[in-house]
Amino acid sequence: MRESEIYDLLESYDFKTTRYVSFKMDEIPPIDFFPVVVKLESDKVVHKSDFGAVKLNINSYEQLEQAKSDIIANVTARGVVLDDEDRFIAVQMLSGIELYVGLVDDAIFAKTIVFGKGGIELELYKDVCYIDINAQDEEIVRAINLTTISKIFHGFRGFEYSIEMAVELIHCIQKFSRDNPQIVELDFNPVILTKSGLTVVDARIKKGEAALEKLGSLRKNRPHFFTNERLALIGASSDSTKVGYAIAHNALAFTGELFLVNAKGGELFGHRLYKSVSEIVGDIDTAVIMIPSHFVIETIRELILKNIKNIVIITAGFKESGDYESENAIANLAQTHNFNVIGPNCLGYLESSKKLNATFGTGGLRSGELALLSQSGAVLSALMDKAYDAGIGFSHLVSCGNMVDLDFAEMIDMLNREESCKYISIYAEGIKNGKEFLRAIRESSKKFYIFKTGKSAQSKKAAFSHTGNLSGNYAMFKGLMESVGAKIEDDIEALLFNPFNEVKNILVVTNAGGPASILVDYIVDQGATLHTFTPEELEALNAVLPANWSKNNPVDIIGDAMADRYEKTLEVVGKIQEVDLVYVIITPQCMTDTLNIVKLCELCEREGKQKVYPILLGGHEMEEAQRYLRSKQIPFFKTLQSATSFL
Amino acid sequence: MRESEIYDLLESYDFKTTRYVSFKMDEIPPIDFFPVVVKLESDKVVHKSDFGAVKLNINSYEQLEQAKSDIIANVTARGVVLDDEDRFIAVQMLSGIELYVGLVDDAIFAKTIVFGKGGIELELYKDVCYIDINAQDEEIVRAINLTTISKIFHGFRGFEYSIEMAVELIHCIQKFSRDNPQIVELDFNPVILTKSGLTVVDARIKKGEAALEKLGSLRKNRPHFFTNERLALIGASSDSTKVGYAIAHNALAFTGELFLVNAKGGELFGHRLYKSVSEIVGDIDTAVIMIPSHFVIETIRELILKNIKNIVIITAGFKESGDYESENAIANLAQTHNFNVIGPNCLGYLESSKKLNATFGTGGLRSGELALLSQSGAVLSALMDKAYDAGIGFSHLVSCGNMVDLDFAEMIDMLNREESCKYISIYAEGIKNGKEFLRAIRESSKKFYIFKTGKSAQSKKAAFSHTGNLSGNYAMFKGLMESVGAKIEDDIEALLFNPFNEVKNILVVTNAGGPASILVDYIVDQGATLHTFTPEELEALNAVLPANWSKNNPVDIIGDAMADRYEKTLEVVGKIQEVDLVYVIITPQCMTDTLNIVKLCELCEREGKQKVYPILLGGHEMEEAQRYLRSKQIPFFKTLQSATSFL
Repeated sequence: MRESEIYDLLESYDFKTTRYVSFKMDEIPPIDFFPVVVKLESDKVVHKSDFGAVKLNINSYEQLEQAKSDIIANVTARGVVLDDEDRFIAVQMLSGIELYVGLVDDAIFAKTIVFGKGGIELELYKDVCYIDINAQDEEIVRAINLTTISKIFHGFRGFEYSIEMAVELIHCIQKFSRDNPQIVELDFNPVILTKSGLTVVDARIKKGEAALEKLGSLRKNRPHFFTNERLALIGASSDSTKVGYAIAHNALAFTGELFLVNAKGGELFGHRLYKSVSEIVGDIDTAVIMIPSHFVIETIRELILKNIKNIVIITAGFKESGDYESENAIANLAQTHNFNVIGPNCLGYLESSKKLNATFGTGGLRSGELALLSQSGAVLSALMDKAYDAGIGFSHLVSCGNMVDLDFAEMIDMLNREESCKYISIYAEGIKNGKEFLRAIRESSKKFYIFKTGKSAQSKKAAFSHTGNLSGNYAMFKGLMESVGAKIEDDIEALLFNPFNEVKNILVVTNAGGPASILVDYIVDQGATLHTFTPEELEALNAVLPANWSKNNPVDIIGDAMADRYEKTLEVVGKIQEVDLVYVIITPQCMTDTLNIVKLCELCEREGKQKVYPILLGGHEMEEAQRYLRSKQIPFFKTLQSATSFL
Repeated sequence: MRESEIYDLLESYDFKTTRYVSFKMDEIPPIDFFPVVVKLESDKVVHKSDFGAVKLNINSYEQLEQAKSDIIANVTARGVVLDDEDRFIAVQMLSGIELYVGLVDDAIFAKTIVFGKGGIELELYKDVCYIDINAQDEEIVRAINLTTISKIFHGFRGFEYSIEMAVELIHCIQKFSRDNPQIVELDFNPVILTKSGLTVVDARIKKGEAALEKLGSLRKNRPHFFTNERLALIGASSDSTKVGYAIAHNALAFTGELFLVNAKGGELFGHRLYKSVSEIVGDIDTAVIMIPSHFVIETIRELILKNIKNIVIITAGFKESGDYESENAIANLAQTHNFNVIGPNCLGYLESSKKLNATFGTGGLRSGELALLSQSGAVLSALMDKAYDAGIGFSHLVSCGNMVDLDFAEMIDMLNREESCKYISIYAEGIKNGKEFLRAIRESSKKFYIFKTGKSAQSKKAAFSHTGNLSGNYAMFKGLMESVGAKIEDDIEALLFNPFNEVKNILVVTNAGGPASILVDYIVDQGATLHTFTPEELEALNAVLPANWSKNNPVDIIGDAMADRYEKTLEVVGKIQEVDLVYVIITPQCMTDTLNIVKLCELCEREGKQKVYPILLGGHEMEEAQRYLRSKQIPFFKTLQSATSFL
């Protein structure tokens, strides 16, 4: 499309566009809006700047004449023969803040709006946000405020621009995109912001086939995954080295009806071992399959006869090993007979409200308010161990495996119906249908914490090899997730700690200045706040500490501090209402009695509203205290960085 | 200074400034450079924009008339009475890229040039670099290239601006600053970049008292610290719980003459215990003082009679406890009698070439090529432990303590004369004389790695409480250090690992996809590169790996991998010349034999030019393997983040 055609189209959609005049090669039109940019309008020249076919700062008719002949000379010298089809366009130059707005058609998120700082800064600083084509005002404003340039809407350097102008522009793009689905790329750079509004002064548009259709839609009327009352474990085994043993053992506490199936028959943990699914009387809600891969499809067919609602396939050896055919067959069966599948190639799942642990993890598990979905078994295992050590419990765990059927969006929709779950943490390697993922989070009443790999092109490959999924652009993923209020984590353990640590005011107690100094940098980097002492609080600490304590936060109680000095300090600190998190740094000094110090932390944790997290720096000297803390399920940290990752 | 005066002054220093005309209130001057900005030039109005005394985009005499009367109306409405002293200035508006150049007078680094993106982006994106007033071309170019905007000098979007233009501008500022020492702040924003050069179009200048004098100068003709041949340990003790015992014991291997001093006399480790310094015959080069603080100054006076060159004061209880008086007395004695002091309140020092370990660390220490200076004892201890575990050795260690005398710059100058030292790592909390610090690094032939705390205002306080030093602006510190080629670390352990890991091409071997995927993100974040397999290399791996391995880097050899599969993989990988670092991720899976896998890493390390670093994820299962690696001094990591911190 020619620039003048684009302007005409945009005007019909209430975009304010720059003043322009399009004129013939031999014409000099009347212009009352100097200075202008003069450009050739010709299909024969695509990269106008490169061909010397753009002249800036044209300020008079005389300069216009000169610009025209310069442009003609430039393109002629490059072998372009101009004719009657070709025209010039003179576009008013505007001074103001250069913004950018664009539209892209992403393979994961389909049509997505990009908004931010325009001009050459667009590519230099990439200060943009991402906005879903269906976003409402709240989401749009939240996204815009993620950019640095949004400061101009909030009083930066005395600017008094209203964010409403930007929101309206986004609405224009949304309407324009809905009415013109064939437009797959749109680039307004710059959009000039002045007191009188936003004016599009340069526009490019690309038509093509939209990606949305490729994303597909979700299956309607799925059974709810978490309504299983009759559970079959297929491949339950008496061989204690097998997964079928571990899961059967873990699942014994299930409050529903449990059926163990093994072709050999017999008995296990006092339960009958059914030789086949068909031996079980009545329907089965959920089946966990742990048998060799070549028996899986046959078993699924038997389960279909039992009106199965949910199948969890632990068994590996499908897509991840190159067997796409079997995996597709499973997907087709699930589709045809409307049951849910989790896996294959996964660790299982946990549903605390029914005391159902259908994972083969060997460590302990606690009940809690956090649901954790993970696309990696190894990562899930590590998080389960860490959570147990730190006393963090789960309402639900889902090891997603290859995700042949149930999508993240669908799992989120289902968890949304579960009252026991308040927080949802997700370890994601690839998202298939970003649009639905976004929709599910937007509609959910839970709080979301997401860690995603595949930030870099190389890791995209790693994730591909692992799950067969493609990862999208990380910046877009992060931006869109944040626009719907999800928190994106940089550290995997933050998926566990973040939900339980909405920290406002932090205090640090230490027996060494250096580590405290490093910790403070990490705290501030994370955007958290250090408590500032009142004179009264300082007085109270002066009364219990030696004269050379640091007199501020961090509270450096000096290297010779024994447990009693830590105790007195924590006693005073415990009374400061505004402090909600206390880090206690312990470094090995000559006489440091680490074990007794960490025991104090236990007491504090029990009593107060303050969280007290010990940070144990140093090697072997700390092992006894670490074992103690683990045995009491008191969270503690071994590095300054990990201690602050969830802030 | 009025804007027109500033332009005149700048012109005399070869700055290209914008065209302007200054004219009386009732005048309309001839202008042949429309469009212009019209501003009031009056001492009565400081914040012109706020008073409506600036009009942009004036394009004709008619508009000029209007602008003048608008401005007069605006300021009059705000109560300003204009008279004959007041004038107008019309400044040519230029289109081009807005850059920024300024000069600040920093408390730590004195006069420093700031260069970067100008316009409103200056404050939004803070895309600036810092350049020392004495920097030569190489340093200036290195600094400029640290900015994002410097891309315009390197072909970004077809721009062909020469970086020479920017370098010349910096030279102009340097000359201008030298000739006008009373100018303590200078702000050119914007400087407009066009094909014809850089033009200053808005300038502010502030006069005042320069900070340089406050920094003071270094003492001349100090004795070289590392020439000590006759060493006295004052406070050597037979009580094994005392620091005086630990240091005497550690120092026994010293190749020079060792004198142990203790008021009680007697014998220790087969050495005579002198009752006082005066009992020792002849001069003493270096004394390490470990006696109670109230005896320290008296002992120093005795040492002065022995022509002492260096004193290391281990004893605490000076500035850090509020005793500034004694600390100042020590400083004065050192100045008057020209000896060096390290400490007080420090852990001591190490000089490997003389087998001198005068620290009270109880762990082992190796000899190597790295000198480590630390302002925190706790941090130094932790790094010494870590270095020993990882087989990293030191040429020199200096625990700086309160730094009463020897400055970082002076220590660097002294280390520069030491051949055994190739790398210098510094843990710094505060720098006193930034100008000299910069000079010392600039002049040194060593490579520098620096970790600095005090990035945030809060942590400035923490550092203050700890060492009594003030920290400067972190961005400036980082920028200046990088301009002289030092590497600034974000992770404290990188001070140990970075010097020995100039990695070009990385390969990852793993038994789980998820952690590898996270690792790759960290690797790419650090700017390091993953090896890409050739078809031949893939072939070789196909031959030894199961069909479902990942077929790219990371090499996912699947969860059931035993030591033999790791072995075959590492064998193939070992032959790939281009790979210089291999990470081996081991996660606990059903049958994983971690100990045997890490033993393979040992073999690889011994043979090849490749570094092979195991990453052991998981808790208790990994302890045996960890003990093994520690006993063999093979570096290993327990988290993905720490494994990549030094890249």
